[in-house]
Amino acid sequence: MASSSPSIVFYDIPSVLPINCWSPNTWKTRFALNFKGLSYRTEWIEYPDIEALCKKMNAPPTRNKPDGRPHYTLPLIHDLSTGAIVVESSKIVAYLDETYPETPRLLPPGTLGLFAAFEDAAMALMPALALFVVPSVPRVLNPASQPYFHTTRSALFGGKPLSEVTPTGDAYAPAWQKVQDSFFGKIDSWIQANGEGSAYIMGDAMSYADLWVASYVIWFKLVLPEKWDEAKTWHGGRWEKLLEDTKKYQAIL
Amino acid sequence: MASSSPSIVFYDIPSVLPINCWSPNTWKTRFALNFKGLSYRTEWIEYPDIEALCKKMNAPPTRNKPDGRPHYTLPLIHDLSTGAIVVESSKIVAYLDETYPETPRLLPPGTLGLFAAFEDAAMALMPALALFVVPSVPRVLNPASQPYFHTTRSALFGGKPLSEVTPTGDAYAPAWQKVQDSFFGKIDSWIQANGEGSAYIMGDAMSYADLWVASYVIWFKLVLPEKWDEAKTWHGGRWEKLLEDTKKYQAIL
Repeated sequence: MASSSPSIVFYDIPSVLPINCWSPNTWKTRFALNFKGLSYRTEWIEYPDIEALCKKMNAPPTRNKPDGRPHYTLPLIHDLSTGAIVVESSKIVAYLDETYPETPRLLPPGTLGLFAAFEDAAMALMPALALFVVPSVPRVLNPASQPYFHTTRSALFGGKPLSEVTPTGDAYAPAWQKVQDSFFGKIDSWIQANGEGSAYIMGDAMSYADLWVASYVIWFKLVLPEKWDEAKTWHGGRWEKLLEDTKKYQAIL
Repeated sequence: MASSSPSIVFYDIPSVLPINCWSPNTWKTRFALNFKGLSYRTEWIEYPDIEALCKKMNAPPTRNKPDGRPHYTLPLIHDLSTGAIVVESSKIVAYLDETYPETPRLLPPGTLGLFAAFEDAAMALMPALALFVVPSVPRVLNPASQPYFHTTRSALFGGKPLSEVTPTGDAYAPAWQKVQDSFFGKIDSWIQANGEGSAYIMGDAMSYADLWVASYVIWFKLVLPEKWDEAKTWHGGRWEKLLEDTKKYQAIL
């Protein structure tokens, strides 16, 4: 895939962080592109501009909003060499593995169904982590994206202002424990199902399933570094090790 | 594995059905043994005798009862050729794939972690189906197993008598719809994640993940045939097709 001008344009959401990239959903695609060693460049799009971009590019909405209108989201890739425009992390993964079979596979043949179940199972545990990380996202966003984020995310918590989402008082400790036990604890148990000492969801070999997890770990670390300091010791330091193992796929091109 | 006397003893729970075998959990192991073409024979154990059997064989409990006492369950296999005694479906699968590498693999190398996530995700959807099938299980059990089943299963529904578990009146239709949409619908979506026209959870090749699903489908069909007649048309007849495809692994040896 070595070529002088990047053949894939990858649309991501910027931030005030020095590395810019922060969103777990777009990290999934960034990791995927880097893992496959594909040539790409990033275009940075603030939240309020995503819908116009998608419409301009004829990219489909990923779902409907609660009021029934179409909801457009990133990640989106535009593959200049094929003309393909693909949205949604899992569809991008399937597209890249199919279109670039000579590059490292993100998911081995036959594992897309099991991965879909893995993603559903992990997403069901995500709310425990979201309670802590989501309310801190605005502090890394540019002013242009903050109102959009507040409005859309607050709706996910029954309209509560984001500043009131994280449990307080007596509810804090059990909610925090749940982040460790449910989201990270379950993923840890799946890794261990491969046999003792396994490092990855697919045992010895890193796959997109690990990059998927790493996307949430890096999001957690970037947005809520003060809590990450504690979390990185959980499960024998497995999650910090995952960030180290995936360092070579964290390039921002 | 062809030998004159079976080398594995498989403990299963009998019933009044002509084929005897009915439990989804032991079907998982029966399917696994047949899929691998291993030589085995079945010992039939009524529910109240499981604990004494496990203690006699030094088989560990699979979990604790709500009151903290150890809970012993089937399936259990005793591999006479290695001396191994293994309980719990997933542990039996890992044992068989590891011990008999020359037979067809139940789960390809590296997929045990993804399978564990699949199983967690599917089990989370199981209660929708259990509401309909579990209350009818006693009609296929022998009298010796009925009190045990009533007591232990009623506890799973907050102590309600099993006869009151299935929703009635206005609650019936949405609960039944949920069986189609949540349990079977989700599994259908995972199969389709492999690409249109996929037959199995791992795409073109049958694996233990399909045998796992087939175990619940056959349980449903055996215990509640009057509802199965409707369910077998769901998702393009996928579930009836699965029973046909797995027919050669349904032998009762």
